[in-house]
Amino acid sequence: MSPTGALTRRLRTRAVRFDTRGPSDVAGLETAFERGELTPESVVCLIGKTEGNGGRNDFTRELAVRAFSQVFERRLGLSATEVEERIVLSFSGGTEGVVTPHVVAFAVEPDDGPAPPGPRLAIGVGMTRAFEPHEIGRMAQVDETARAIAEIAARCGVAPGDVHLVQMKGAIPSYSYEEGLAAERAGRPLRSNMVWSRAASALGAAVATGEVSRSALSDDVICQDGSLYSTTASCSAKPGMGRTELVVFGQSAAWGGDLVVDHTVLLDMLDAAAVDALMARLGLRSGDPRLVGAFAKSEADPRGTLRGHRHTMLTDDDISDTRYSRCVVAAVVASRLGDPRVYVSTRAEHHGPDGGGPLALVVRAT
Amino acid sequence: MSPTGALTRRLRTRAVRFDTRGPSDVAGLETAFERGELTPESVVCLIGKTEGNGGRNDFTRELAVRAFSQVFERRLGLSATEVEERIVLSFSGGTEGVVTPHVVAFAVEPDDGPAPPGPRLAIGVGMTRAFEPHEIGRMAQVDETARAIAEIAARCGVAPGDVHLVQMKGAIPSYSYEEGLAAERAGRPLRSNMVWSRAASALGAAVATGEVSRSALSDDVICQDGSLYSTTASCSAKPGMGRTELVVFGQSAAWGGDLVVDHTVLLDMLDAAAVDALMARLGLRSGDPRLVGAFAKSEADPRGTLRGHRHTMLTDDDISDTRYSRCVVAAVVASRLGDPRVYVSTRAEHHGPDGGGPLALVVRAT
Amino acid sequence: MSPTGALTRRLRTRAVRFDTRGPSDVAGLETAFERGELTPESVVCLIGKTEGNGGRNDFTRELAVRAFSQVFERRLGLSATEVEERIVLSFSGGTEGVVTPHVVAFAVEPDDGPAPPGPRLAIGVGMTRAFEPHEIGRMAQVDETARAIAEIAARCGVAPGDVHLVQMKGAIPSYSYEEGLAAERAGRPLRSNMVWSRAASALGAAVATGEVSRSALSDDVICQDGSLYSTTASCSAKPGMGRTELVVFGQSAAWGGDLVVDHTVLLDMLDAAAVDALMARLGLRSGDPRLVGAFAKSEADPRGTLRGHRHTMLTDDDISDTRYSRCVVAAVVASRLGDPRVYVSTRAEHHGPDGGGPLALVVRAT
Amino acid sequence: MSPTGALTRRLRTRAVRFDTRGPSDVAGLETAFERGELTPESVVCLIGKTEGNGGRNDFTRELAVRAFSQVFERRLGLSATEVEERIVLSFSGGTEGVVTPHVVAFAVEPDDGPAPPGPRLAIGVGMTRAFEPHEIGRMAQVDETARAIAEIAARCGVAPGDVHLVQMKGAIPSYSYEEGLAAERAGRPLRSNMVWSRAASALGAAVATGEVSRSALSDDVICQDGSLYSTTASCSAKPGMGRTELVVFGQSAAWGGDLVVDHTVLLDMLDAAAVDALMARLGLRSGDPRLVGAFAKSEADPRGTLRGHRHTMLTDDDISDTRYSRCVVAAVVASRLGDPRVYVSTRAEHHGPDGGGPLALVVRAT
Repeated sequence: MSPTGALTRRLRTRAVRFDTRGPSDVAGLETAFERGELTPESVVCLIGKTEGNGGRNDFTRELAVRAFSQVFERRLGLSATEVEERIVLSFSGGTEGVVTPHVVAFAVEPDDGPAPPGPRLAIGVGMTRAFEPHEIGRMAQVDETARAIAEIAARCGVAPGDVHLVQMKGAIPSYSYEEGLAAERAGRPLRSNMVWSRAASALGAAVATGEVSRSALSDDVICQDGSLYSTTASCSAKPGMGRTELVVFGQSAAWGGDLVVDHTVLLDMLDAAAVDALMARLGLRSGDPRLVGAFAKSEADPRGTLRGHRHTMLTDDDISDTRYSRCVVAAVVASRLGDPRVYVSTRAEHHGPDGGGPLALVVRAT
Repeated sequence: MSPTGALTRRLRTRAVRFDTRGPSDVAGLETAFERGELTPESVVCLIGKTEGNGGRNDFTRELAVRAFSQVFERRLGLSATEVEERIVLSFSGGTEGVVTPHVVAFAVEPDDGPAPPGPRLAIGVGMTRAFEPHEIGRMAQVDETARAIAEIAARCGVAPGDVHLVQMKGAIPSYSYEEGLAAERAGRPLRSNMVWSRAASALGAAVATGEVSRSALSDDVICQDGSLYSTTASCSAKPGMGRTELVVFGQSAAWGGDLVVDHTVLLDMLDAAAVDALMARLGLRSGDPRLVGAFAKSEADPRGTLRGHRHTMLTDDDISDTRYSRCVVAAVVASRLGDPRVYVSTRAEHHGPDGGGPLALVVRAT
Repeated sequence: MSPTGALTRRLRTRAVRFDTRGPSDVAGLETAFERGELTPESVVCLIGKTEGNGGRNDFTRELAVRAFSQVFERRLGLSATEVEERIVLSFSGGTEGVVTPHVVAFAVEPDDGPAPPGPRLAIGVGMTRAFEPHEIGRMAQVDETARAIAEIAARCGVAPGDVHLVQMKGAIPSYSYEEGLAAERAGRPLRSNMVWSRAASALGAAVATGEVSRSALSDDVICQDGSLYSTTASCSAKPGMGRTELVVFGQSAAWGGDLVVDHTVLLDMLDAAAVDALMARLGLRSGDPRLVGAFAKSEADPRGTLRGHRHTMLTDDDISDTRYSRCVVAAVVASRLGDPRVYVSTRAEHHGPDGGGPLALVVRAT
Repeated sequence: MSPTGALTRRLRTRAVRFDTRGPSDVAGLETAFERGELTPESVVCLIGKTEGNGGRNDFTRELAVRAFSQVFERRLGLSATEVEERIVLSFSGGTEGVVTPHVVAFAVEPDDGPAPPGPRLAIGVGMTRAFEPHEIGRMAQVDETARAIAEIAARCGVAPGDVHLVQMKGAIPSYSYEEGLAAERAGRPLRSNMVWSRAASALGAAVATGEVSRSALSDDVICQDGSLYSTTASCSAKPGMGRTELVVFGQSAAWGGDLVVDHTVLLDMLDAAAVDALMARLGLRSGDPRLVGAFAKSEADPRGTLRGHRHTMLTDDDISDTRYSRCVVAAVVASRLGDPRVYVSTRAEHHGPDGGGPLALVVRAT
């Protein structure tokens, strides 16, 4: 890309999806390299599901990151830190129910072929600036997230309305006990935790894509007004991260290759109709080999009901609602796609309406 | 009914479905009585889901049976034993994911109105003879189960091919340690447990309805040949039961009322297409108020894969595969019906193909 | 008792402990009645452990209460409500690890025999007045709880310092969403939940027994200052209860019988030394048939460490810390007593120091 | 050591115990190296507990092995395979209840100091020969395991009766479906799984140490006769391992250093008396800084009772009995030691009597 961020040459995205036999199973990626389906140099992002519980004591993500990082360390001659800075390794624990542990690897490379007949999947990666603890969960985080997304999209030649998925690892800067206490005494308690960081990140995406007007937002509506939401955000948050890591998936006429992306939002967990409509737009049928990746967010409806009837996900002390919600949304989506390789991560503050969540599909163009 | 078992007067089925706030919440049933939607005298069967784990330490079923039995004890002036002999109280623990704890109460009463334009839901209740422990899981159980189902169906004026759901509580007669040892030494180890009783019960239903030929069966194929199965069976098995309790749901031109029943079989957990086809046959749309009850069986595919891709339900030591399988099938079915009030019970030996399971719907006729 | 509350005649406590085969197994109680070890008329309190998870979806307690209530309804010719008003049925879910599901039934009856050589177990039952939602978790609840305990103890001839166990079901009056909002806006958010009710109840016991000075307490120290605690309290709290139900166990020279009670406090979960010292005071050896009941409270240390080393109970998203803490304390206590029939309930705000909890033993006098 | 395996020079064992903040936390080991408490070259074995579930989907062990292996790869310039061949990395998942995730690193080095006043801890590492699948769980495995243990002990100058702990990773050679079928048809079904491999390994240890007479054993008593057991074995088994990996801990007058080892067997889960007696022999008090490592095996009594009273560990479908049994034994042992850094692994076929298990302590000599 040029110093100004504009595309000077056509790029294209390539993607390979592979099943894993465990969190550290890198064989699928190695095979893709050996077959020349991807080059290690061109990989920008891995998104995968591992067999953990998705909670605090889920170590499968760390195991996967270590294992996949080592592939790139070895093949590219880089240190672990250098790999971390170069490639987004985004693993989500929890393959409840039908979900096959799997990974989708995305690569970006120059495209010297003829221009495709229509817009194609563009992927851009970036970071926000570092946040102060007091900014998290407040408009400062929303604004900077929106700014960074807009910048990445622009750099990739993606119009705001053509963004379909914003995969984020939300910042949660650490703070001392004293800082926390001081903020509380000043009447502005810190929000530097997972809930708030996901919420503000999603609203940042909503502002960047124009789904929510900046003027409708304030510190007070965050985590309060469920009617304000993004349909493209997919954020998890990670304690200790000072900046938010961003991967923007959009459509651009300036990109080549054979991949396209589109998205929808499930209005609730049972909203199979939304999936059907999205598949129809993409010309995708059940079991279609054109499918490359399905990415969704889920949440057990916090009001405790679904279509007017009680659900028990929030009052079960044996199994976490996060596990149920991933299991349900993955089952519903997989039953329409005819494919159990579905990425669903959970907790969806301002990601779709309460009890619902976004779904993005990456497919090969017809 | 006449001594020969033939119908001498037209009957009709009535059904009321109600949500519960806990396993002992009988308010919905009381309301149905107070509103005259059902009379306590006419109730033949309650089928309900409770918030348990569906396993050995699930006491929600016992609590529900106690609570609902007491309603009938009080209203009919009967003892608990008399209620047990008169009314089938069939509760299944496990409302994983979207499932609303709920009950469907079925009643049978004389029908003096005009004959309906087509066949209607007929319900018959009965028992097998008492089994010896050595018969369970073998052809003796299959044959007697088939005989009893056929007799109940005939008595109700239901042709074998018009049976759509056979709800069973399978016999598991107790035996002494010495009996068990003796059987083992004689080379015919006892099969008197849940797995075998469910399997033989399902095959009994398959023989009764003509889905499987008696001549294709032998002691050796039970629990071995997954290609032999019923699409109408729904059996749980209960240690200590000497006889199998049976409720046959079929269609009969001799019955009145406004309820009909039909069924299908999901070929695997993601087989939403089967649900769609069944709904189309019944003219049922998503969220349709005509729906009265949905009854399914589920099983995590014992081969460990789904549509050729690995699933992790059988290798998770935190959460039982039975909970996952109910969660998944309920989500898939509910997403098509647009209704989370779905009854799914699990473990499905010879209930549909491996990894699949039957689904029956009771709806109001158009 | 006389109208002034003073004992006019010597009473004595009898107790029977029995194992159960499930939450509804009342056979042990029936046997005690049949053998004349207890009379239904004299029973004042049942304390039992059931096989639930002790959480929100634990229905074993309800099942046990129903089953045991029915015994008294039948034997005493009372309604369920009348039994509830007459007899404290206190069941706690969670028999993690070694714990045998069991019940201890306590009865109080006139004692016409000779005065015993020393003080004996006295039991008194009572209720606080009804609480307003805004009183819960604040000094109003502490004071009224202390007052009611002191009154019950005085009525039984038990000096404040001779109280050894105060079994409580803490009030949690319901309130409307509007009331909650109004309280929040007034700067005094309601505390009407389990945490606060347990905390204030325990501090009420501490004031009544003189362990904590009333002057050391204020609304602000509740749930804040872990150095203020009771060593006799054992409170669970129940949403919807308007009043706190109290059972006071103490020693009194005015009572007869052959039972005594004493107590200690475990300073942390591993404090076997405290158990040993208590056993030594009572002359109790491991496996001693003199033991009638062991009653403890447990809590995973909220600071996340134990004797300076990290524990993982609070960061495990598969298993609740409440289950671990009951499992651990029961194992430690049972290993000293040589008896797995130990009652441990969990969450212990102001019940012993942070991470510790009270233990009371009822034994036959030597 | 000399070619004949006899000690030609005095050796000594050093050990460092450190807590971890997660399965991959190697800081404690690095610190030990930096402080010179150990050298990477001298380390022979790491035994650690990680925060997993100890079951099939526990990936914490793999993560720990990767992380610790990398330390040695980097420091010794070895490949992962070379580290695996040189150093036993033995991690067990499951820190239920009070257990602190921690590691004990053992090193063996030449000892040039004066001879100690008494026998000292000797550690020897080795492997069995490779097993055929049909040998596992049968006398062939018992005999070869006994032979290998005896050889290692002899090489270290440890008499059979001075062996106190045999840490094993039991072989489970893979086999094809056809091999399995053929064995079944030949009337000798393969036993190549975890249960049988642990059982035969433990009996191998019992034979090597003289606790069980070889003549009392046959293929038929394995997994049948619980009265035959080792009090020093600690075996986990790993599918795919062709050989059993062995670490023998014993006492030898030929070794130097300041560490000693002793062991006992808990007759059941509540057998705190056995712990006390062992501590007395070692002169160890509660909270004693002399303690270096505590290693135990646990098992929920398969008979479903403990001291004549029912336990519910085997009938709980929410939580595995393996988690309960580790939680209980760790709590009991830690409460005597006054230290939550206890290694307990579970499943204990022929490791102590049914429901009991061995305990070994490594401590600094007085």
